[in-house]
Amino acid sequence: MRSERQATARDDTAERPARRAGRRPGDSGVAETILDVAEAEFAARGYEGTSLREITDKARVNQALVRYYFGSKEGLYRAVFLRRGEALTRERLHLLDELEARRRRPRLEEIVAAFLKPAMDLRRQEGGAAYMRFQARVQNEPGALEREMRRKVYEDSTQRYIRALQHALPRLDPAIMYWRMVFMVGAYFYAISGANRIEVISRGQCRSTDIDESFRQLVSFVVGGLRAPLLDV
Amino acid sequence: MRSERQATARDDTAERPARRAGRRPGDSGVAETILDVAEAEFAARGYEGTSLREITDKARVNQALVRYYFGSKEGLYRAVFLRRGEALTRERLHLLDELEARRRRPRLEEIVAAFLKPAMDLRRQEGGAAYMRFQARVQNEPGALEREMRRKVYEDSTQRYIRALQHALPRLDPAIMYWRMVFMVGAYFYAISGANRIEVISRGQCRSTDIDESFRQLVSFVVGGLRAPLLDV
Repeated sequence: MRSERQATARDDTAERPARRAGRRPGDSGVAETILDVAEAEFAARGYEGTSLREITDKARVNQALVRYYFGSKEGLYRAVFLRRGEALTRERLHLLDELEARRRRPRLEEIVAAFLKPAMDLRRQEGGAAYMRFQARVQNEPGALEREMRRKVYEDSTQRYIRALQHALPRLDPAIMYWRMVFMVGAYFYAISGANRIEVISRGQCRSTDIDESFRQLVSFVVGGLRAPLLDV
Repeated sequence: MRSERQATARDDTAERPARRAGRRPGDSGVAETILDVAEAEFAARGYEGTSLREITDKARVNQALVRYYFGSKEGLYRAVFLRRGEALTRERLHLLDELEARRRRPRLEEIVAAFLKPAMDLRRQEGGAAYMRFQARVQNEPGALEREMRRKVYEDSTQRYIRALQHALPRLDPAIMYWRMVFMVGAYFYAISGANRIEVISRGQCRSTDIDESFRQLVSFVVGGLRAPLLDV
């Protein structure tokens, strides 16, 4: 992850600048602070709606420091995406490796749970909910930058999961599995991206902040969808 | 719909301004032209990323005309949402009325198809794909304006569909149906909001532009998800 961020900096051989007096004590690093602030700002107002100035004011750093670490606003945006996106992908692949290293063939619901659990767990992390909102915005951006970011972070692991799901449902036409992968991603994204749908729809009876319940509901629904016969409609 | 837009105009008793020389011939009305352009611009870059100036330049009208019809950029944004959103809701309710007026009880897949079909059909309309991208962005906005717009357009019809689905699946715990409604909306939104997921995931084998196939795949998946047993995960 660090190497990703450095790759976007203009000059990654320069000395790290002295820490700014304005930063809060106890931060693990100024770059992390900038990423935390940028994540929250991009999540709340999107890339276009956020100025670098707002980020540097809230992070209490100057713009030169952002340029030093991230090169540009676009570099910072990319670094925000990669920081948790790559961690999410690593965790997904790790869980799938574990399932596949066991003696018995993974069950369908185990594969679905392994895919969805890292995303649900993100919501338990500080800033994780902001990342999911950020991420939901990125998904709606048709631009080349976002397409390339999504591909870089998600493509390989998605294809591995599709193969694992196809092994668990060998009689399903592979083309159908592609559609169902899209629907699975859509269902979890929408449920966890933070606009409180479940609270509105259930009139307060169900809570998106109940992560264990969200996870159980989601896995159950998706497993049913993956197993479903193709209807003539 | 017209009354919605007028409600946002500053002065709806004023004379309608003379048509602008810059408009293309054959337009059904200048307000519709402004809505079409605004829909495409908001879809491409979001509310924050779009200036009123860009809209008026592309629509070849002046800003006074936008203020006359829509009051403000926010009024225009709201009118874009309401124009197709209210038509979508009317069509959903009409299809459900038809199902419920028949002698026999609607089957689960008929209710799901009635809910999803108007959204899929939107993609066949000129500008409909732009609206779905616009709509996907609105869904990610946590602000009060977007919350109120969604509630106004979707709440009543969503609750009617939930009741219809509960009738078709009487043994399902009502709380589970709320979750499943959220997942259904997420699955269709993501599939049709236009960032070409299915093309990427299927490596070109499946096409989001094949609306009949998207619809069939979606209804099948959702019906399977709605019928699924709740798992212990």
